[in-house]
Amino acid sequence: MKTVLLTGFEPFNKQSLNPAWESVRALEGWAEEGFAVNVRQLPCVFGHALDALRAALGEVRPDVVIAVGQAGGRHDITVERVAINIDDAPIADNHGIQLVDQPIATDGPAAYFATLPIKAIVHALREGGLPASVSQTAGTFVCNHLFYGLMHELRTQPATSAGFIHIPYLPQQAAQIPGAPSMALADMVEAIRIAVRTACTTEGDLREAGGKTH
Amino acid sequence: MKTVLLTGFEPFNKQSLNPAWESVRALEGWAEEGFAVNVRQLPCVFGHALDALRAALGEVRPDVVIAVGQAGGRHDITVERVAINIDDAPIADNHGIQLVDQPIATDGPAAYFATLPIKAIVHALREGGLPASVSQTAGTFVCNHLFYGLMHELRTQPATSAGFIHIPYLPQQAAQIPGAPSMALADMVEAIRIAVRTACTTEGDLREAGGKTH
Amino acid sequence: MKTVLLTGFEPFNKQSLNPAWESVRALEGWAEEGFAVNVRQLPCVFGHALDALRAALGEVRPDVVIAVGQAGGRHDITVERVAINIDDAPIADNHGIQLVDQPIATDGPAAYFATLPIKAIVHALREGGLPASVSQTAGTFVCNHLFYGLMHELRTQPATSAGFIHIPYLPQQAAQIPGAPSMALADMVEAIRIAVRTACTTEGDLREAGGKTH
Amino acid sequence: MKTVLLTGFEPFNKQSLNPAWESVRALEGWAEEGFAVNVRQLPCVFGHALDALRAALGEVRPDVVIAVGQAGGRHDITVERVAINIDDAPIADNHGIQLVDQPIATDGPAAYFATLPIKAIVHALREGGLPASVSQTAGTFVCNHLFYGLMHELRTQPATSAGFIHIPYLPQQAAQIPGAPSMALADMVEAIRIAVRTACTTEGDLREAGGKTH
Repeated sequence: MKTVLLTGFEPFNKQSLNPAWESVRALEGWAEEGFAVNVRQLPCVFGHALDALRAALGEVRPDVVIAVGQAGGRHDITVERVAINIDDAPIADNHGIQLVDQPIATDGPAAYFATLPIKAIVHALREGGLPASVSQTAGTFVCNHLFYGLMHELRTQPATSAGFIHIPYLPQQAAQIPGAPSMALADMVEAIRIAVRTACTTEGDLREAGGKTH
Repeated sequence: MKTVLLTGFEPFNKQSLNPAWESVRALEGWAEEGFAVNVRQLPCVFGHALDALRAALGEVRPDVVIAVGQAGGRHDITVERVAINIDDAPIADNHGIQLVDQPIATDGPAAYFATLPIKAIVHALREGGLPASVSQTAGTFVCNHLFYGLMHELRTQPATSAGFIHIPYLPQQAAQIPGAPSMALADMVEAIRIAVRTACTTEGDLREAGGKTH
Repeated sequence: MKTVLLTGFEPFNKQSLNPAWESVRALEGWAEEGFAVNVRQLPCVFGHALDALRAALGEVRPDVVIAVGQAGGRHDITVERVAINIDDAPIADNHGIQLVDQPIATDGPAAYFATLPIKAIVHALREGGLPASVSQTAGTFVCNHLFYGLMHELRTQPATSAGFIHIPYLPQQAAQIPGAPSMALADMVEAIRIAVRTACTTEGDLREAGGKTH
Repeated sequence: MKTVLLTGFEPFNKQSLNPAWESVRALEGWAEEGFAVNVRQLPCVFGHALDALRAALGEVRPDVVIAVGQAGGRHDITVERVAINIDDAPIADNHGIQLVDQPIATDGPAAYFATLPIKAIVHALREGGLPASVSQTAGTFVCNHLFYGLMHELRTQPATSAGFIHIPYLPQQAAQIPGAPSMALADMVEAIRIAVRTACTTEGDLREAGGKTH
């Protein structure tokens, strides 16, 4: 029986909701044969997001962690490949702080790769009729901050599989933002279900091209 | 009691389904106080699409006509403003014909404006939480061909309100097309419901900016 | 000997220069065997732009008119196919006026097609190593306003060939606008040279696909 | 007196030229007070690119290394922040090899940050009227492969400043690729001049936001 931790951020950047939290909360208490899911909301604040994550890791002791964040402007489910050791915020976080070029862990390496089976997840999402791709950057704001902090925290626990998934705006957000693509909540929830099932049942990862020329 | 005609195209350009027809067929037989809906599938073929439309207009004798088409690559519901008198096909139609710079009606004007309340429809869609905008071009393929032919056919029937709505790919299509945004079927069906209700109940149109600088 | 009129707008929308005017002014007094060029700057103001155009048409009595405008956000030289009879301004013009859904000529048709050889121009631009395409919409702001007014003015002079070309931002503009593509001034000037030469020497137009599915 | 090494790739992906090499070769033998430039062309082949780079490093013994690559589809000069330890090729390299999820250095860390003053370079480029931004991903093809290999090679030489700059298509390439933005060769050469001057004269880096939310 695997224990899964799903996290989603509170709303940020003047939005009144965050599709990440809306999707994750919909899976509270969800269990299938072989795994059970716990969910946590995290503050969109440098440092505080990691404090809350550490507390959740201590309480839940998960075998699989999938952190979920909003990527306003992306059109598909993007499974992140790599977290980098830098905070460089284009906007302020929810405490009004805008860090520039600060390492997340002063003693940490430049980056960590996700340990989720990212190719298998993208493959399963597409098989399930949901647009998805591997992303080579999670940005340099609180999403990447959390993703890096998560992998740094788990660096000595190789048995725990962890990573980050970015999801698009909800239609009701995009209705107010000219030019923004979106995805229905039900499809995003289904995407996370597929990601969890894939993460809980895949050993290693698929060898399937998922990169970019640049 | 108003009679509404909704049309949707068959699949084209190597797709196995067309979100326009999937959305329209879902509304077959739909009626509310004040209107009842009829639906028709149209071939994605120059000329034949207009023949089938004319037959449908004769049978249904609609007060409101909304033709719906797939705009693969657009991310929102786009309500078309204007149909132009030219066929200039970037791909072949379903009979393998690729017309270049041919007028649709040799005796017709350069363009017709939609007579639907396009601003009111976009406004109502956004109010309903659905991303939408006015589009200034329906292209030069079979969608524009049908739209122009529809307005030309109705040019002596000013009481009939008519126009064209483009909708994005479905998620299952976009899952196979890297980079393509999409919209859930349920949201597209709801969008057409809103468009029909708005068209049946709006006199004139909203005066709300909906243009583009270019 | 043909007389050519080139027009370019003054800066608008908070920009301190307009690539259209910068490109056009560079061709002041340019002549080759068979044609000579006159240039005029136009105000980016509804109505006034057309007044200035009419005055220029009266003075210059051109055989060929190419109006040039800035299309910030487009990446290539776009030769416009059609002007539509509507002002629907997403931003205010240089007199602070923001017209919504107003016809340009109350007695005019819904649209005019350009009478320039648009396909031959796009073909020649690409042959010349410059990215170019046919555009199916010139928007609904002052550019389209001028383009429609130009074609309306010339509706009884079929011997005069006229149309509109949109050009991207200059690099120095794009350097201040995240995400905006641009083109070097020298390439835009060369593009207009090619367009003028092609317009002065082409009878009819090429039959080459240049449309869009939507 | 600083020694600068500039590298540019040979053409790849069916292109007959590579703007990176065209830009770099234009600077062969360029020197100003304080520095002199050496240039090398590199094969667009996994492994071989690094062999050629190592040879060049041995011959030139540079103080500053800027590797330049083509990023077809990007519209501005992008200064790369981070190289990641993975080859995941969406297309084959010039030897027909398409590596999938293979580490570049089996003993290397997940990533290296560029040691060039990337913020100062972006700042100077914009000041110089050239569109530029920091990029958070150099992809997972031969460009990233070279960038990672370069930083890995220099990991014990902290005095050497090194990094990677991606540049857009040339206009003549974009003329054949619908939808692709481009930049004039002269502007790209000037951009590399600015980058070299900035790299040779900047201690540390500017603290200026240059990140992304995702």
